[in-house]
Amino acid sequence: MKPVRLAILGLGTVGAGVLQLLQENAKEIKRRTGREIQITHVGTRRPRPDLNLEGIQQSANLLEIVRQPDVDVVIELIGGLSPAKEIFLEAIKHGKQVVTANKALLAECGNELFASADQHTVQIAYEAAVAGGIPIIKVMREGLAANRIEWLAGIINGTGNFILTEMRDKARPFADVLKEAQELGYAEADPTFDVEGIDAAHKLTLLASIAFGIPLQFDKVYTEGISKITAQDVQYAEELGFCIKHLGIARRAPKGIELRVHPTLIPKEQPLASINGVQNAVSVKASAVGQTMYSGPGAGGGPTASAVVADIIDIVRDISYTEDGSGTIPQLAFESLEDINILSREEFTTGYYLRVNVDDRTGVLANITTILSNCGISIDAILQQPRLKNRVPIVIMTDPIVESKMDEAISQIQALPATHGEVMRIRLESLDS
Amino acid sequence: MKPVRLAILGLGTVGAGVLQLLQENAKEIKRRTGREIQITHVGTRRPRPDLNLEGIQQSANLLEIVRQPDVDVVIELIGGLSPAKEIFLEAIKHGKQVVTANKALLAECGNELFASADQHTVQIAYEAAVAGGIPIIKVMREGLAANRIEWLAGIINGTGNFILTEMRDKARPFADVLKEAQELGYAEADPTFDVEGIDAAHKLTLLASIAFGIPLQFDKVYTEGISKITAQDVQYAEELGFCIKHLGIARRAPKGIELRVHPTLIPKEQPLASINGVQNAVSVKASAVGQTMYSGPGAGGGPTASAVVADIIDIVRDISYTEDGSGTIPQLAFESLEDINILSREEFTTGYYLRVNVDDRTGVLANITTILSNCGISIDAILQQPRLKNRVPIVIMTDPIVESKMDEAISQIQALPATHGEVMRIRLESLDS
Repeated sequence: MKPVRLAILGLGTVGAGVLQLLQENAKEIKRRTGREIQITHVGTRRPRPDLNLEGIQQSANLLEIVRQPDVDVVIELIGGLSPAKEIFLEAIKHGKQVVTANKALLAECGNELFASADQHTVQIAYEAAVAGGIPIIKVMREGLAANRIEWLAGIINGTGNFILTEMRDKARPFADVLKEAQELGYAEADPTFDVEGIDAAHKLTLLASIAFGIPLQFDKVYTEGISKITAQDVQYAEELGFCIKHLGIARRAPKGIELRVHPTLIPKEQPLASINGVQNAVSVKASAVGQTMYSGPGAGGGPTASAVVADIIDIVRDISYTEDGSGTIPQLAFESLEDINILSREEFTTGYYLRVNVDDRTGVLANITTILSNCGISIDAILQQPRLKNRVPIVIMTDPIVESKMDEAISQIQALPATHGEVMRIRLESLDS
Repeated sequence: MKPVRLAILGLGTVGAGVLQLLQENAKEIKRRTGREIQITHVGTRRPRPDLNLEGIQQSANLLEIVRQPDVDVVIELIGGLSPAKEIFLEAIKHGKQVVTANKALLAECGNELFASADQHTVQIAYEAAVAGGIPIIKVMREGLAANRIEWLAGIINGTGNFILTEMRDKARPFADVLKEAQELGYAEADPTFDVEGIDAAHKLTLLASIAFGIPLQFDKVYTEGISKITAQDVQYAEELGFCIKHLGIARRAPKGIELRVHPTLIPKEQPLASINGVQNAVSVKASAVGQTMYSGPGAGGGPTASAVVADIIDIVRDISYTEDGSGTIPQLAFESLEDINILSREEFTTGYYLRVNVDDRTGVLANITTILSNCGISIDAILQQPRLKNRVPIVIMTDPIVESKMDEAISQIQALPATHGEVMRIRLESLDS
């Protein structure tokens, strides 16, 4: 069989990593595929004398590259929405298979792109778009295919997890750790994407679609960042036997699906609690198998290249052995998608961690517990902290309750004359059923 | 397209679980495959009025079932070597795809079975044979396909891990916990398969083959059980910051491949150390991605059925979309296997935990450390324990050393007049590179 010919668009950390991995590991990869892989084009604006580009055509005109007849598979690693989207569609239109790590593009424009790929009988492979080197797409789409997925919860942004880990281990404030993360190159100069949960929401959009067989709906993901978490909250959570993680959660509830990214208290014994630093992990609860977890490096050149090249190998096998090269597995895991209701924030059901700073006077705790009780909220634990600058921080953990009830309770607690500042609310998940 | 027709051989816990999962989750599975799955035959000796077997032919003659024309896929869940092997070969000869959970059969007779499947252009799917519900075969064979695998280390026998966890958490002796495991139904009446590491060695044989592209070589796996581990050793390991796990390890060393199952000290911070009770986990170090880990329930009806049905779904997709139905992925991950040298026990390189009971007299420790030094063994830590029944237990942790040197050192230590009883030796792995 003739070699399968690739065009790599973008030679940043990941693009260069893919090129080098294909070159260094060529022999072992050929043993797996039984077929040669040849890089015919790279799309780059800068010359890269540090890379071995012998015999590879270089151009900065990406649209031109994806139209070339000597390209079977396009590896899109330029990122962002534009011009990536136009290039994507042009590649598909020309019958090219596409491999990508572009979570933003797929989460925000994926429905259109996947439909176009179906129409042109090609596939879009995106293992690298969710959890870097952890093959979570393959696991969800194939490995757990026998199951009805009940929920998944993931640490799917390494920067956020690094910040929360440092805040816990060294009792440092958020802003201070963020600055270090930026210096270490983990966080961008504009850290919004990471710390406000947008990157995680992109990834959750993809995971939820293949878990439940629903369309990609990034705009329906409730997203809350970690910038308001204080070192105090991290410490109080510890004292209560919990750990704060920034989780992406997709859950099948009786009235629909919850899609949410937010800081979350989880019990220390939960496997996800032991995922530290820039590591990623996804825990999945599925009907037949129960709870399984997948962890590893979620970003970086090597891990992302590992996922991209695994997709390339899958596609080489599909091109070689399936009738039309479009593969045997539906792109979004299901042959047909279902439009299941996505719940609004007010309809979520979770436990809660509340921290209220109050005047140190008789009856305040009674006032608060009465409000909670009147709203139908059960208290699981209370921690009254030592006085701090004339205020007493009260920490309350509740059983799961629908969020609209909690909104009501918090607005009443906020209105108490003894309450100072904002009531801090962090959702809590036991993840045990 | 016509339905894909299955014969399920064996209606024990797993067989019944597969039947029920296919029935209960039929709608969701059809959404994934786009094709009906129909169970046409079950092979069972006893009537099962508790199961819904409407429209399914039942017979105790398994050889007869696998010859039937209305069977596309045979699900072999009877276990053991015979008559499973004959039935397997008969099914393959009749062009049936085979799904199995039979680790013993594949590890011991797999080379012959896979060759026969290749010859008849059918595939043998065996996700359920290694880590129950954790899709580790798919991960190794496809998800990490871009990488050169450096090593893998797995907790792949739940019974053994349950026993070691209880010994640690409750300071109970081995025999006592084993008895409980038998009462709980985790361990068989003859627990040899589990506690002596034979079951783990079967699974390791399969993992190593797909990790390195080598033939199945169960007879070359060095296997050591956990029955000699004492509650004391577990406690001393804890004090040194380690945890004892029964690991299956396959490692690419400079002169060949190490295949070994044995109790192992690993640092408490290693993700594998937090896998408790009957849970399984496999940690893999691969060239591009680094270290990833996969954990979950490694046995039981639901988890095993999850893996069997995932294999069935893969096969339904392959039958539907590939030219000859034999799938796109080589059965043992590589198109061609390589006969890489398998190292003998004496050639292994690992760190060591040694426990020696000695007379409490001057100069004994000096004697021991001199022996180690003369054999070229560096000491990493020493723990002298309080006197116990007139003897002093000395615990020594060493840096990695080739095992023949350690044999030499131990026989010299054993020969010291001050030494009492056997020198306890447990291998030690840092798992950090």
